[in-house]
Amino acid sequence: MKLPVYLNHAATSNHKFETTVNELCTYLKENNNNNTNRSANGLNEANLLFETRQLLARFFHAPDPAHVIFTSSATMSLNMILHGLLKPGDHVLTTMVEHNAVSRPLHLLETEKNVAVTRLFCEKDGTLDPKQIAAAIRPETKVLVMTHASNVLGTVLPVKACFEQAKKQGLITVLDSAQTAGFLPIDMEKMSIDILSFTGHKSLMGVSGIGGFVLGKDIEKQLDPWLTGGTGSASMSLKQPAFLPDKFEPGTLNMLGIISLKSAVRAIQEYGLEQIMAQERMLTARFLKGLQALPVQILGTQEAKCSVPVVSIVAPTIDTNELAQQLADDFQIITRSGLHCAPLAHETAGTLKTGAVRFSFGLETTTEEIDYTLSALEAILVN
Amino acid sequence: MKLPVYLNHAATSNHKFETTVNELCTYLKENNNNNTNRSANGLNEANLLFETRQLLARFFHAPDPAHVIFTSSATMSLNMILHGLLKPGDHVLTTMVEHNAVSRPLHLLETEKNVAVTRLFCEKDGTLDPKQIAAAIRPETKVLVMTHASNVLGTVLPVKACFEQAKKQGLITVLDSAQTAGFLPIDMEKMSIDILSFTGHKSLMGVSGIGGFVLGKDIEKQLDPWLTGGTGSASMSLKQPAFLPDKFEPGTLNMLGIISLKSAVRAIQEYGLEQIMAQERMLTARFLKGLQALPVQILGTQEAKCSVPVVSIVAPTIDTNELAQQLADDFQIITRSGLHCAPLAHETAGTLKTGAVRFSFGLETTTEEIDYTLSALEAILVN
Repeated sequence: MKLPVYLNHAATSNHKFETTVNELCTYLKENNNNNTNRSANGLNEANLLFETRQLLARFFHAPDPAHVIFTSSATMSLNMILHGLLKPGDHVLTTMVEHNAVSRPLHLLETEKNVAVTRLFCEKDGTLDPKQIAAAIRPETKVLVMTHASNVLGTVLPVKACFEQAKKQGLITVLDSAQTAGFLPIDMEKMSIDILSFTGHKSLMGVSGIGGFVLGKDIEKQLDPWLTGGTGSASMSLKQPAFLPDKFEPGTLNMLGIISLKSAVRAIQEYGLEQIMAQERMLTARFLKGLQALPVQILGTQEAKCSVPVVSIVAPTIDTNELAQQLADDFQIITRSGLHCAPLAHETAGTLKTGAVRFSFGLETTTEEIDYTLSALEAILVN
Repeated sequence: MKLPVYLNHAATSNHKFETTVNELCTYLKENNNNNTNRSANGLNEANLLFETRQLLARFFHAPDPAHVIFTSSATMSLNMILHGLLKPGDHVLTTMVEHNAVSRPLHLLETEKNVAVTRLFCEKDGTLDPKQIAAAIRPETKVLVMTHASNVLGTVLPVKACFEQAKKQGLITVLDSAQTAGFLPIDMEKMSIDILSFTGHKSLMGVSGIGGFVLGKDIEKQLDPWLTGGTGSASMSLKQPAFLPDKFEPGTLNMLGIISLKSAVRAIQEYGLEQIMAQERMLTARFLKGLQALPVQILGTQEAKCSVPVVSIVAPTIDTNELAQQLADDFQIITRSGLHCAPLAHETAGTLKTGAVRFSFGLETTTEEIDYTLSALEAILVN
């Protein structure tokens, strides 16, 4: 086993696929950069872009490659979606386990733009009862935005049930898939997702600086451009073009990010999502089982089959930052402590004051690393 | 001379420095990605970030490395700056030669947020008389935003004179340096720049997907966060943190982009801005001189010493798109035709209906390429 042991995959994937590294280096060494839509020879870039849109449209079951919009991050996507959909007087539903990428834009809309926000109750383990939705809807409710899984508790939310209810009552449904795309299958049509936000650098295994969102059927007209600027198209007009993807893609895109996504999503498809899920859930179950013997409080459902590969713990005898630091210093185990940019999830779990230490697993995590981590925890907490 | 001849450097730098390619590939091959502020071992990334901030702060004469904010593009920076500064009822001054990265956000603010916009008159060649500013200022005028040089006409605007006048009357000054950073020296203090927007992939020679803005002294409190989300800091609060750079840097940053900037700006410093300017202005002068003998209308001042290395032309006997296509197909010369995302600059030049063919030069452009391009134009237009 090689050290360090990286157990922070929910923050970013540590090692990218070798094929991705090679493809990026090949592109860099060709060293022939052009600007799509802004050059007589942007053809190579245009093809790369189109192929990646096509790949992602199929991966997420989107209606059309032009509905795949590239941005710099999930944060950027969610800002564009929430500010583009919600107007003064609107009401939006969300949950108590959202990441700050959702909670902070909503807070700004709530405090400065007269948008009302209702946060759906989650149990202490992060589970959410979809029956709440009907009661929470008002005449001015426009959007339900939720994460696919809590980045703290690991709990997967009942997206399909929630979104079906929301759609029945005419709401627009927005999914934050930062913790699930590349781990759980996502079918926009079957899951009634109107707009899907994704990040490239987590379980989709791309580099940082690339993300995006995908538009379902008949939704684009309801989303106003929030970020505007040059598109190399319809340049005569000072208004953002109305067609896709240009309506939401001003400025020059991150080509290395797009190449990394194309390469990594292909590698994921070859590996198989089923295989990824089975493997990482096995690791999660093994870790959860091992934790039973230790003096720790485990957050979340404690059931690998209802979770993404994320396990957070609090130990009554040691401060969480101190625990993470000891794991790093004495055992070279890399975790993340604190509030994980999700204060409401910690409030839900009762750990707002203490924070927690989060262990998150990826494709490269091994059973040996899980067992080593359990021994390290035993050494710190028991011995 | 190798073909194709790339004369579209104003859209993006074609070949990055070899050292930049090598540093990116080394980082990629180490393949050990972490997430600053979001991991117990993001130290390498944190150092890279800090060093790049420090380098850029010195390069632009900014008060503090923490005042250097990374974004995904100049478009993103300008949206964050304009939406962050301007509130309903405010008045903003700008010019008639702005890129759509400025004009489209201002148009949106004008049409939807009750912000008044005055566009300062430019002569047909793009020159601007700073004396207009005093007369244009109203009690509610808050900001003067302008480009450092027109991306169509090449004309450098009198930024220092304009900003000094604007500052005297209490305005906030915002510079779009997309066409100049890495070519003209920029000193935020001496030029009275409150906020400087830059892009990484043009004459700063980085990869696409990275840009940023730099805050001068005593200005940050006047700029509200527009993009919000997780920062890995002050996570307890649903409000964006108030400190720099986190206030304006939610989401995960583009590490490859930041590495490329660090590497490229160091290479530019070694090469010397004076040397870059001298070399590219010599080429521009040579091209302008050669054009005198051809049946073309040249836009801009036609003086290399007042310009960035950009020359746009219209030929009365041939459509501009057709001319660019012939240059590409028959001579492998890569230019950009159309409106260059700057319709008001074309309106100013009288070329809104025709567009123009733009030739823009870079560090790697040679006199041989200039002469070859002049011969190609002669073959198309004269023979």
